[in-house]
Amino acid sequence: MLVAAMCLALLGCLQAQEFKGHVSIILLGATGDLAKKYLWQGLFQLYLDEAGKGHSFSFHGAALTAPEQGQKLMDKALESLSCPKDLAPSHCDELKGQFLQLSQYRQLKTAEDYQTLNKDIETQVQQDGLWEAGRIFYFSVPPFAYADIARNINSSCRPHPGAWLRVVLEKPFGHDHLSAQQLASELGSFFQEEEMYRVDHYLGKQAVAQILPFRDQNRKALDGLWDRHHVERVEIVLKEMVDAEGRASFYEEYGVIRDTLQNHLTEILTLVAMELPHNISSSAAVLQHKLQAFQALQGLQKNSAILGQYQAYSGQVRQELQKPDSYQSLTPTFAGVLVYIDNLRWEGVPFILMSGKALDERVGYVRILFKNRAYCTQSERRWASEQSRCLPQQIVFYIGHGELGHPTILVSQNLFKPHLPTQSWKEVHGEPGLRLFGRPLSDYYAYRPVREQDAYSTLLSHIFHGRKESFITTENLLASWVFWTPLLDSLALEVPRLYPGGAENGHLLDFEFSGGQLSFSQQQLEVLMPELGSVPKPSDFQVLRAQYRQSPLVTAWPEELISRLASDIEATAVQSVRLFGTFHLALSGGSSPIALFQQLAMGHYSFPWAHTHLWLVDERCVPLSDPESNFQGLQAHLLQHVRVPYYNIHPMPVHLHQRLCAEEDQGAQSYAREISALVANSSFDLVLLGMGTDGHTASLFPQSPAGLDGDQLVVLTESPFRPHQRMSLSLPLINRAKKVAVLVMGRTKREITTLVSRVGHEPKKWPISGVLPLSGQLVWYMDYEAFLG
Amino acid sequence: MLVAAMCLALLGCLQAQEFKGHVSIILLGATGDLAKKYLWQGLFQLYLDEAGKGHSFSFHGAALTAPEQGQKLMDKALESLSCPKDLAPSHCDELKGQFLQLSQYRQLKTAEDYQTLNKDIETQVQQDGLWEAGRIFYFSVPPFAYADIARNINSSCRPHPGAWLRVVLEKPFGHDHLSAQQLASELGSFFQEEEMYRVDHYLGKQAVAQILPFRDQNRKALDGLWDRHHVERVEIVLKEMVDAEGRASFYEEYGVIRDTLQNHLTEILTLVAMELPHNISSSAAVLQHKLQAFQALQGLQKNSAILGQYQAYSGQVRQELQKPDSYQSLTPTFAGVLVYIDNLRWEGVPFILMSGKALDERVGYVRILFKNRAYCTQSERRWASEQSRCLPQQIVFYIGHGELGHPTILVSQNLFKPHLPTQSWKEVHGEPGLRLFGRPLSDYYAYRPVREQDAYSTLLSHIFHGRKESFITTENLLASWVFWTPLLDSLALEVPRLYPGGAENGHLLDFEFSGGQLSFSQQQLEVLMPELGSVPKPSDFQVLRAQYRQSPLVTAWPEELISRLASDIEATAVQSVRLFGTFHLALSGGSSPIALFQQLAMGHYSFPWAHTHLWLVDERCVPLSDPESNFQGLQAHLLQHVRVPYYNIHPMPVHLHQRLCAEEDQGAQSYAREISALVANSSFDLVLLGMGTDGHTASLFPQSPAGLDGDQLVVLTESPFRPHQRMSLSLPLINRAKKVAVLVMGRTKREITTLVSRVGHEPKKWPISGVLPLSGQLVWYMDYEAFLG
Repeated sequence: MLVAAMCLALLGCLQAQEFKGHVSIILLGATGDLAKKYLWQGLFQLYLDEAGKGHSFSFHGAALTAPEQGQKLMDKALESLSCPKDLAPSHCDELKGQFLQLSQYRQLKTAEDYQTLNKDIETQVQQDGLWEAGRIFYFSVPPFAYADIARNINSSCRPHPGAWLRVVLEKPFGHDHLSAQQLASELGSFFQEEEMYRVDHYLGKQAVAQILPFRDQNRKALDGLWDRHHVERVEIVLKEMVDAEGRASFYEEYGVIRDTLQNHLTEILTLVAMELPHNISSSAAVLQHKLQAFQALQGLQKNSAILGQYQAYSGQVRQELQKPDSYQSLTPTFAGVLVYIDNLRWEGVPFILMSGKALDERVGYVRILFKNRAYCTQSERRWASEQSRCLPQQIVFYIGHGELGHPTILVSQNLFKPHLPTQSWKEVHGEPGLRLFGRPLSDYYAYRPVREQDAYSTLLSHIFHGRKESFITTENLLASWVFWTPLLDSLALEVPRLYPGGAENGHLLDFEFSGGQLSFSQQQLEVLMPELGSVPKPSDFQVLRAQYRQSPLVTAWPEELISRLASDIEATAVQSVRLFGTFHLALSGGSSPIALFQQLAMGHYSFPWAHTHLWLVDERCVPLSDPESNFQGLQAHLLQHVRVPYYNIHPMPVHLHQRLCAEEDQGAQSYAREISALVANSSFDLVLLGMGTDGHTASLFPQSPAGLDGDQLVVLTESPFRPHQRMSLSLPLINRAKKVAVLVMGRTKREITTLVSRVGHEPKKWPISGVLPLSGQLVWYMDYEAFLG
Repeated sequence: MLVAAMCLALLGCLQAQEFKGHVSIILLGATGDLAKKYLWQGLFQLYLDEAGKGHSFSFHGAALTAPEQGQKLMDKALESLSCPKDLAPSHCDELKGQFLQLSQYRQLKTAEDYQTLNKDIETQVQQDGLWEAGRIFYFSVPPFAYADIARNINSSCRPHPGAWLRVVLEKPFGHDHLSAQQLASELGSFFQEEEMYRVDHYLGKQAVAQILPFRDQNRKALDGLWDRHHVERVEIVLKEMVDAEGRASFYEEYGVIRDTLQNHLTEILTLVAMELPHNISSSAAVLQHKLQAFQALQGLQKNSAILGQYQAYSGQVRQELQKPDSYQSLTPTFAGVLVYIDNLRWEGVPFILMSGKALDERVGYVRILFKNRAYCTQSERRWASEQSRCLPQQIVFYIGHGELGHPTILVSQNLFKPHLPTQSWKEVHGEPGLRLFGRPLSDYYAYRPVREQDAYSTLLSHIFHGRKESFITTENLLASWVFWTPLLDSLALEVPRLYPGGAENGHLLDFEFSGGQLSFSQQQLEVLMPELGSVPKPSDFQVLRAQYRQSPLVTAWPEELISRLASDIEATAVQSVRLFGTFHLALSGGSSPIALFQQLAMGHYSFPWAHTHLWLVDERCVPLSDPESNFQGLQAHLLQHVRVPYYNIHPMPVHLHQRLCAEEDQGAQSYAREISALVANSSFDLVLLGMGTDGHTASLFPQSPAGLDGDQLVVLTESPFRPHQRMSLSLPLINRAKKVAVLVMGRTKREITTLVSRVGHEPKKWPISGVLPLSGQLVWYMDYEAFLG
């Protein structure tokens, strides 16, 4: 009966439709803001799109309000429903009338209410001689209400087997990884994964929803472009002009990263970065590839982000949350985050995520800027924008607002002419004079949707069609929180930079990246003014030269000390290579050398790495790839960044025959043989040592006599610390070196430094006191904290 | 006497000058073009600058012309001498008169002429009661005359010991490495290295001569900028509007690379790229650092360059050189070359060298463009050019001509305000509306010389002061030819792209780089039109699937074949890692796999390298770093480009204890143990083999029974080819693999392919016929040439 009515009304039923069953849609929070603004309109649109195709519908608006008052509120919300522009007003009124007839309010408060709802649906289906296809429950309610509603639906409102259940959830989906896990596991006790549709409404925005189809339809052009060899950077940006006034209680708890970066911007990031599945209409394939993209995200450090807060924010919080006058919020209202992706496609390409309130414009976009690899021979006055490869090449998914005011896809004309589905996207030619991303609009191929559609309408349609790829799976959600939570934790006490808001921000919030770190481009004024009575800075001191145990001592603040040691090593290396053709360097593990490795990797361009052999001073008996391995530190902080030939790298063979440091494997002897074979006279050009708080050096410990004297070049030893088993160069071998540098850093070394300064040659008590090169030079490098305490 | 006169005239001799001796300057070719245009003026300038400082001078114009006529020609050349603008005309006339008095013509033709010259100088010095400080011979003559003149100077015109001799030479300094060597060794038989001053007049151009001082005076700002982390690219450009008309006989022999790139642009490149010596006024240090920069230049390949020739050129050559109508020159009149520098400072930074005739403008510049590492939060309408780090940041040494018309140093205002010596460089503010390098001139700090000076005047002063760093030493010259000669040889038969000349060139000569290769941005029209009866192209064929020796066969053109094999390996890798957590891949050496390695390195972003173990199928008994080593190929073409952890790389231990493949070193046994320890069941996930024309595979040869059967997993074998000693996986071990791929490519394999298709299991005759995995899969990959002949 219902079917027939709709059928006549909408399509004239030229062909009899196959009947596809009845669908009940229950909108929880039917009188709330979101429902009023978007959801009822979206449901009406769904009705317009789908009712003629064989389904019958009923719409249940639900809330806690008593029936009569609730119905009134809902009627009010429904008054403003509008039809697409191409529908005649009379026809629109007719369809609206039908929709209203199918929609009714009901109070859903108690368990009985849910039981009644269930019974009513069943009764209606039976009465009308229909069969039930499925039920959609849309949770447009605060998250604290989720559990109760979910329990009731699960226990009372599941349709009979064969019909589907879909529950639609709105963010926030937790506050961090733990809370998201708890929420997810709670929901998981009521619903199957395939029943849950977590909404990120950005995935319904037309320009965002087009990213994957665009990549798919332009595979041929993008195949050779969509990678680290061609992409210069990706910017994912969401700027707002409004501030958080009136929403401070929500905002103060979440802040900009949880509000937009963790969800919207990260989702967009994965759409850009993921490997493109062969078939993008397979939800499973899309979701799997998206998850892989999450897994490839490089972990964020504290300095991967910069934070801001508009100046009026703390006042708003004080007012809205009745905080004392002294209260200063640390919640960021602006953030820039630098993301790298650790796979071969994207390695090294900066993905810049930026979002904030109280900025100078409202706009959202994803911009893929390609590298300029061209040289244009003519004077730039003669460059033709559609041909010149020297002008910027970019693809922009313009989400909306801003100077364009509409969702738009822009492709530089000097890149390629894209394919877009002509039934849904039309080419447009913008206002002359408008410039975007450094170029006039006329430099781009520009496309706009034929019919602009609200994100919720799109998503309701996707829910109805079970297109799960437009929603956030539990795995996806948790992967995102795994990515963001460590950053949020590390930034919890960070003071955001204050900004005035709007155009007055000037260049205050500009930021830049270098070596994986983000920083504001402009230094804070207060940093430029030295504080009275402030702690002395490293630059206030010079490197001091003195003596320690009758050998030269270099002492300085850590930064200068490391820089000096690195220069000294480089000078020794250059000289060795000039004299002997090679440089044999034996390095210690531990934390102090890491800064040295980084310094050597970044700042020493003339270091003769190709002629340098790297040896280990000592090693823990763990597999080489174990995070505890000294070699692993060397690999991560030095080898990855410089070009040492494979065959010049000599890790200690602590892991032979799948056993660790077994005597009978003769690893120590084998390393000794390797040294004898390659290093003339077994005399290293430079040995870098450290000193432990117990006076140990290399892995030579007071408690363990091995290696302190005798003929063995390399020995197995026992450490009092875990892992106990070690391999180490022996003291006699160390003392054959042409140069030995001992690096000692940090306040904890103060005591041993003082002690060792006074003792004689007592290696059995303090192995470090046995370091005295036979004919080479010994130099101590100590920072002020180790030396002066 | 002379001294006193000058002293009075120039400075009024307020202080008595110390007398510094007499200097004779002999200009050979005194009536030639260069002399007329620049050299006499330069000598006059030298006289003006130096005569008041204690030296006395005499100037000898020399040529082959008889004395009387020669003197007339020289007088004519001297007529146009001009004084600096700040000198009063009367004073100028006075000084010019003095200079003319000191200058005389003499014929230098025979040995006697040179003896006479020598005697005359000695006599004059004696008569005037002077002592001789030195002699400068300026060779402004064609190179073929060098040897004769040099011989005469050496035998007759050397000053007495204690006075210096300086001979000044003009390019061309040879035509390639060999001829330059010959020329250098010929000159070397007459002169000491320190006596020779080879002129590259670009080193005297003010903007070029300022590069090192600029780097020195702005060390603090540049220290953190002048490297691969900050520089996006360097462009070194010399564009001419004129063509080679009238000079075709010279040009046809040299071409643009020898004319400008090998010398001017390369010299500029080294000034930008070299490590900055601590003291830039030390000639020795500058020259040594410059030489190091040469040594770091990465070798050029044929595809490092693109060539052009203006359309009228061949006609001009036919006319001027009386060539037949059919003659088509291959000499390039335009070239773009991509240079990389193989050190840590510049690795990966493209240095683009470009020069040509008949272009749309005359201009020369070096442009250092910095990377944009900023994100600017405001709408670009609000960017302030002197603050915004999102606008281009660049430093330009503008050599001259072009839109600026003067030597200029430009530094983007958003970069830093540079230091320049105010006595010689002044800040200027350009015409409004002028745009350069993408920005209005007002975006730059711009500096122009206080006094513009011709390059030759500058260089003559440097010769006089012995500033050798402004000249080309023999080492420097030969290093440059070592760099350029292989490219010139490889391009000798290359057909340059024809261009119409001037503004009409449009975008025809734009070029771009990718993976170290240069290519024109626009494809040639003829390439787009398929030729009738042309050879079929790879894309005309599909990958064929068939059987070979009862196993699957994939056959295709080389490119498709490699691409298919790479995809298959990736798929196997992904599956292995999913199932077992690791992927054990054993690779063969040789030339065929190189393309495969490159393909895997560049195109396979999802390859699970971090979980892949790389093993060698076989190895030559040479050190691992020997170019013949299979491992070396793997290192160069694959390992350098992907991130395989150090401990997952397993080269064969052919080089233990400094001996190669000694039986008693048990290298084979040790590799077998490593395999047993790490590879489950010693069953590799994939083994890649090749096939030799004698039916060998891995390093298992028909003549050598080792490894064809038995229990040994790894064996030492004998190859009929050098190096004879090999280490190889054994056939039984290979046959334990889960998958074996055999790659066979090239026409030379046709015969063995046919033969092996017919034989049974006869590994002792044809080891490849013994490849048959026990429970794994065997797949043959053959290109059409190997399979179809």
